[in-house]
Amino acid sequence: MPSSQTITTTLRLHNATPLETPVFELTPILTSKYGEDARLIYNLAPQGGEALSLRYALTVPFARWLAMRTDIQHIKRYQIAKVYRRDQPAIARGRLREFYQCDFDIAGVYDPMIPDAEILCIVAEVFEAFGIGVVVKVNHRKILDGMFEVAGVPADKIRATSSAVDKLDKASWEEVREELLGKGLSGEVADCVGGFVRRSGGMREMLQSLASDAELGANKAVMEGLADMKLLASYLEAMDVIDNVSFDLSLARGLDYYTGLIYEVVVADDITSQVGSIAAGGRYDDLVGMYGRRPLPCVGISFGVDRIFTILDARRKKSVSDLGSQAQVYIMAFGGKEFDGLLLERMRVARQLWSAGIRAEFAAKVKPKPLQQFNASEGVPVAVMLGHEELEAGQVRVKCLAGGISKDKGQLVARENLVEEVRKLLASATPE
Amino acid sequence: MPSSQTITTTLRLHNATPLETPVFELTPILTSKYGEDARLIYNLAPQGGEALSLRYALTVPFARWLAMRTDIQHIKRYQIAKVYRRDQPAIARGRLREFYQCDFDIAGVYDPMIPDAEILCIVAEVFEAFGIGVVVKVNHRKILDGMFEVAGVPADKIRATSSAVDKLDKASWEEVREELLGKGLSGEVADCVGGFVRRSGGMREMLQSLASDAELGANKAVMEGLADMKLLASYLEAMDVIDNVSFDLSLARGLDYYTGLIYEVVVADDITSQVGSIAAGGRYDDLVGMYGRRPLPCVGISFGVDRIFTILDARRKKSVSDLGSQAQVYIMAFGGKEFDGLLLERMRVARQLWSAGIRAEFAAKVKPKPLQQFNASEGVPVAVMLGHEELEAGQVRVKCLAGGISKDKGQLVARENLVEEVRKLLASATPE
Repeated sequence: MPSSQTITTTLRLHNATPLETPVFELTPILTSKYGEDARLIYNLAPQGGEALSLRYALTVPFARWLAMRTDIQHIKRYQIAKVYRRDQPAIARGRLREFYQCDFDIAGVYDPMIPDAEILCIVAEVFEAFGIGVVVKVNHRKILDGMFEVAGVPADKIRATSSAVDKLDKASWEEVREELLGKGLSGEVADCVGGFVRRSGGMREMLQSLASDAELGANKAVMEGLADMKLLASYLEAMDVIDNVSFDLSLARGLDYYTGLIYEVVVADDITSQVGSIAAGGRYDDLVGMYGRRPLPCVGISFGVDRIFTILDARRKKSVSDLGSQAQVYIMAFGGKEFDGLLLERMRVARQLWSAGIRAEFAAKVKPKPLQQFNASEGVPVAVMLGHEELEAGQVRVKCLAGGISKDKGQLVARENLVEEVRKLLASATPE
Repeated sequence: MPSSQTITTTLRLHNATPLETPVFELTPILTSKYGEDARLIYNLAPQGGEALSLRYALTVPFARWLAMRTDIQHIKRYQIAKVYRRDQPAIARGRLREFYQCDFDIAGVYDPMIPDAEILCIVAEVFEAFGIGVVVKVNHRKILDGMFEVAGVPADKIRATSSAVDKLDKASWEEVREELLGKGLSGEVADCVGGFVRRSGGMREMLQSLASDAELGANKAVMEGLADMKLLASYLEAMDVIDNVSFDLSLARGLDYYTGLIYEVVVADDITSQVGSIAAGGRYDDLVGMYGRRPLPCVGISFGVDRIFTILDARRKKSVSDLGSQAQVYIMAFGGKEFDGLLLERMRVARQLWSAGIRAEFAAKVKPKPLQQFNASEGVPVAVMLGHEELEAGQVRVKCLAGGISKDKGQLVARENLVEEVRKLLASATPE
């Protein structure tokens, strides 16, 4: 996989441990966790044994693992693995049926918002390392729920309202309003929801504006959420990562299991980007407890590795055909009419170079033609050239190929000094 | 994943390109390729669209990909990915339903046995790098088929005979003979097969012994196979990797698609090991052509990454609980009765250290107790200690923790030199 090392290097700075979970989960464990999106889960055919499905994301399998490992009270883990969704593929947007996610999670009881702040710090560090400017949209489930309550949304319609409002990054308010009416909200309630959720801005500014809203201030859930957000703001300031954070009241996240802070990362110069969010997550304090063994609060983030590389690739305008040889040395042999190809000798030299850690290649032909060998060596910096006469004298020729084919026959060196001489040429042919 | 880099480093020396293929294949493409083992393939439930299965190994998906990419005439590719089998798990033997394979393949028309020899050279290099002594068992499909012909096995029973003979590494000849009789061979034919296949030895010795066998020498397939093996022996000698190779006439490999050289790698000090083969492969010249677009000869090897790590882990007698922190610096804060925990300052220091590439950690508590912090810092080489008085003077304390908790209060350093001072302490605390 292309350099997901940029992410793991940062995660290891934060003492994350790699952890793998299986690709299969029991079907009932998955289907109840993804709301409307559960229809995108791949199920296995019944071939005996329990009903199994392929993981849809990495969070639920991690929570299931934590529920089983009751000996673990605290863990910071990461996992890079494929997830599977029966979705409509859109390659240009990096949306595939099978794609990599890189998840990082902090599980355990800690003081409020400290792990949450560390995760947003990691987000800043990761995208800085990638050189991608981002906006981190944040919101809080309790604030959302409280707002809907204040607006008069019936309790049994809060999830549906939430998932409609979440579409405001792609759809107009008119479209979302239509959906809310379709779900049974009155026009008045829908407009009140719209008045609340269409607000966003910097953390400090939004906190001030919300604190002065008497109507919202009277709601217990909203106040609890705002207390969390205030703490978060002070932590993000201490870590110097508050600048790219946008407090966006329309951010709702589709998944059912979030309980507190939620966030979504989008590319800064293209907030309404086709690619969509490139990382997202939130706090899920109740998910581990759902398996009935013990509760364990968690907060996590999932990096959309393939989407990130889609963006990086588009920027690099990388050439499509990237499958060529990266050899450092091409081993050739030449001779007259009776020439036997010197295959065994080319093999001996190759093995010697490989053992010295040098990427070497030779034509897989018994008697390769000179032109074949020159063509195959295109782009390779150094050639080793073998001939019967030279070998009998205990010598071989080495040559820089940087300038292309030339009449220059290269430099005669003793067979036993070959590796050393090749190293010298490589050093001069491939400047840093 | 644990250091599969040992394998990829060697593969890159041989100019291999990483290539990913999807986890899903059309069901009919898989079911016809694995003989009796096809029953172990996981199928997806019908949820609309084509019938899909999970890959059973990486070779068939690669061949399918090559059949589609008719623009590619030559490629050396590798892939590390999970494969899936509905098998009986046996964790101690590294046999799981979901496990990693690392495949390397050379596709393209080349002179006979040159790519095959390079793959056996790679095998030697990889296991040398792992420090695992191995025996590489080799055989040739044409020799096998020819031997069975000479022994009088009917053409329609050759595959069944082959798969029974392949069990000779785990079962006794009596058991295999029983199976051959059950499959309809006469006692005389079975005994003749047994006389042939129970021979193994070094390449040179076996080639000599087989060349002098008049009965086998009259068979065309055997002679073609022996010509290949003779070439191979000379190439392996040139590459100096012939010593661990054992020419084993009972090696048959279960898979239907092999056409030439086949090989299997076992641990040297335990040929009848519980772990079984840790790498295996062979030449499959007809598999790409089966998709009806174009033929392309291939030869490849599959490293059983999980089995290799099972062996390495067992040798290391690694402790089970490996999930601890690997922090380099633990940031603490202390104070008197009115102490506020200095959380924001601990965060500022952490961010500073992370930005400098230093793995730092602090207690995720507003007011952590001294003992909590000391306990959490166990095994961490360096502490940064914050206090109100020192901070007001623009200073912090740094201290080596190597000797455990002591009364030593550490060294006062200026706040702005913190990163530099921490680096010095880390260098002294963690000698190479």
